[in-house]
Amino acid sequence: MKISLSQLGERTQEPPISWLLKVAIDKPDLISLAAGFTDSETLPVDETKQLADLVLSGENARKALQYGTTNGDYLLRKLTSERLIKMDNSEGESYSPENIVITNGSQQFLYLITEALCNPNDIVIVEAPTYFVFLGIIQSFGVTPKNVQMDEDGINPESLISLLDSLVRSGELPRVKFLYSITYFQNPTSRTTSFEKKRIILDILKKYEKKAGHAIFYIEDAAYRELRFCGQDVPSSLSISRGNSRVIYTGTYSKPYATGIRVGYSVLPKELSEIILRIKGNHDFGTSSFLQFIICEALRTKLYDTHIQTIIRRYSEKADVMEKAIKENFNFNYHCIKPQGGLYFWVALDNNRRTRTDFKSSIFRKSLDNNVLYVPGNICYANDPSFQIPRNEMRVSFGYASVQDIKEGIRRLGNSIRNVLNK
Amino acid sequence: MKISLSQLGERTQEPPISWLLKVAIDKPDLISLAAGFTDSETLPVDETKQLADLVLSGENARKALQYGTTNGDYLLRKLTSERLIKMDNSEGESYSPENIVITNGSQQFLYLITEALCNPNDIVIVEAPTYFVFLGIIQSFGVTPKNVQMDEDGINPESLISLLDSLVRSGELPRVKFLYSITYFQNPTSRTTSFEKKRIILDILKKYEKKAGHAIFYIEDAAYRELRFCGQDVPSSLSISRGNSRVIYTGTYSKPYATGIRVGYSVLPKELSEIILRIKGNHDFGTSSFLQFIICEALRTKLYDTHIQTIIRRYSEKADVMEKAIKENFNFNYHCIKPQGGLYFWVALDNNRRTRTDFKSSIFRKSLDNNVLYVPGNICYANDPSFQIPRNEMRVSFGYASVQDIKEGIRRLGNSIRNVLNK
Repeated sequence: MKISLSQLGERTQEPPISWLLKVAIDKPDLISLAAGFTDSETLPVDETKQLADLVLSGENARKALQYGTTNGDYLLRKLTSERLIKMDNSEGESYSPENIVITNGSQQFLYLITEALCNPNDIVIVEAPTYFVFLGIIQSFGVTPKNVQMDEDGINPESLISLLDSLVRSGELPRVKFLYSITYFQNPTSRTTSFEKKRIILDILKKYEKKAGHAIFYIEDAAYRELRFCGQDVPSSLSISRGNSRVIYTGTYSKPYATGIRVGYSVLPKELSEIILRIKGNHDFGTSSFLQFIICEALRTKLYDTHIQTIIRRYSEKADVMEKAIKENFNFNYHCIKPQGGLYFWVALDNNRRTRTDFKSSIFRKSLDNNVLYVPGNICYANDPSFQIPRNEMRVSFGYASVQDIKEGIRRLGNSIRNVLNK
Repeated sequence: MKISLSQLGERTQEPPISWLLKVAIDKPDLISLAAGFTDSETLPVDETKQLADLVLSGENARKALQYGTTNGDYLLRKLTSERLIKMDNSEGESYSPENIVITNGSQQFLYLITEALCNPNDIVIVEAPTYFVFLGIIQSFGVTPKNVQMDEDGINPESLISLLDSLVRSGELPRVKFLYSITYFQNPTSRTTSFEKKRIILDILKKYEKKAGHAIFYIEDAAYRELRFCGQDVPSSLSISRGNSRVIYTGTYSKPYATGIRVGYSVLPKELSEIILRIKGNHDFGTSSFLQFIICEALRTKLYDTHIQTIIRRYSEKADVMEKAIKENFNFNYHCIKPQGGLYFWVALDNNRRTRTDFKSSIFRKSLDNNVLYVPGNICYANDPSFQIPRNEMRVSFGYASVQDIKEGIRRLGNSIRNVLNK
């Protein structure tokens, strides 16, 4: 007897990353530069032991083991608000703990906001390229992604205007619900959006709202913000006062602290947070109190900040190692800018028939034969018929791999590419 | 500028329980017999401290702080499988760890399965009454609930047959996706479904599948199963071999262990678990490894079982206290059977104009004036036009309230009801 799935059930595809993980399981000697996992050696084992002990010894021990509220623990929301205010060197109502929702990592928030705003055939504007798991989410909702081009400092405004104009002409503008932008060390390109760009993008979106007939939101995904190892932090769009009612800011404590502890947070306009909380109430009535209290103590005791210092030193070293390895081993044409934070190098090869990097390409297969894995760049682009997806790019991560594995992995990758190019 | 929500966003309502919680916040002297929270005094504070220490001292400490797989930790799934096999005194492929998915409490699973199977206007069969948060979920998906009557030992088979026959006649049978049954100490009635009933219900559903044109699943929600303080456990429908491919069993470690630690599990047919995992991948890529490892250690060290013994002794005492208080204070006509487990007493008053218990009723308002809160029975019934919702019932919980508060709460409730009846 067949199973009758929902339309969402039918549409939801296996994420490409599962395939990568499965490939990895069968090859014990494989070095994966694909996974977005974080550094293993610096995981805060002792710190977490100490924090769990603190949480369970204090007067709130029982509270940590009981249900909380759907929006999350008040103290955690307050500390989050203060942290953002400090990072942005700004202030104002948009930072209020009342506007903050705690989720199971920021991933859950991306799901909730798409659920709350998007019907099938609605449109979401995404960066080209963008976070491929988010592409999986919008695909499962039957949402149409539209690409905008990126510059080194964020979205290209002309590309955005040209897209919006074309949507006005085709009558599709009312279907546009939000623009999704990863503003710090973007996954996959590691680019950071400048403050000026945020202001410009918000202004452009605002101009088209009247024709759209409703609010067009700007989702600023800042998941990697705290992983900066050089250069200066950029204020978030929450600090742009006139943009406040359109800005949705999402961040996470999981990436910087420990991905096994799933606590993310989002700041959003009040009308929207009410809807998100109703939906989250149905998902799980709130994120684990115990995990929230651990993060809360980490922030309060500053163990969180100390840990951040440790990991950014570590990532800085690993990024240096990867840069050096790429320079030594990639003796063919390529383009790559060393990131100032995050977990990724984004490498573009010369664009020709031989430099394809997708799952079926000679380079990918040769790399797999040589026991090294990367994320093919093409899976990071939305399927937007008006856009030609580049096939000559790849994302390599220095997050999880050890220093030794980064060196060896890049050596194998260089060999694999050279081998295909020289055929 | 207005916000353009999705249809799901528009449909999702504030859960009635939020309103109850808000009422409670403004009244510090209020005794809530409404919340489904678990006992606070017996929360395993020391045990969890010990377990967190164990997890973070062992060789898997780093693994506990890193991403895991979407389906959950293998050892936890294996221990869960063994536990179910032991409880059911059965065996077979349906218990395989491969068929188990770990979620953020069993609540998340209820959401995922509805997402995977139901389009708007599809039909889900529910017990009358049923778990009101689940009613909130299906309402948000635009799903039509259909009621079946309950006997003391589970769903009334004639009521189910009569419903299915009427759906055949109206041509709606192909829209039926699953039947949702809470089989142990049902929320809200505390009734337990007999094994024989499970067999009968599965047989009935099977018979109608051909006319439906697809599988009709039987979801057995066993969230309260381990909270039995008298009588004998009943095997689950997983042990009915011919029903295996239609049975979805969902359980949780949160309710028995600690609700602040959100770890649930479900056993389901392979074809379905693949879809659920794709969707869960989009939600969160998997439940917190740290929480999973804590539960895993609790099971391995048997601290979990010791804790269960503690809480069922406690709940047994509290149920005795509540029963005695009801007998002493309810000196008017009512019907109530002492539960053998779970967290609730289900009280039916005589059915007349004065005994209404809903939010707008005199009894509810008088109770609130007297600082005591219960769950009105009517919110536990689906809005099914073919069904007359009883208005004379209430759910009172002995889970969270202290012994003192149970006595005083029931005294206040008795006074409130008497006061209205005597007017």
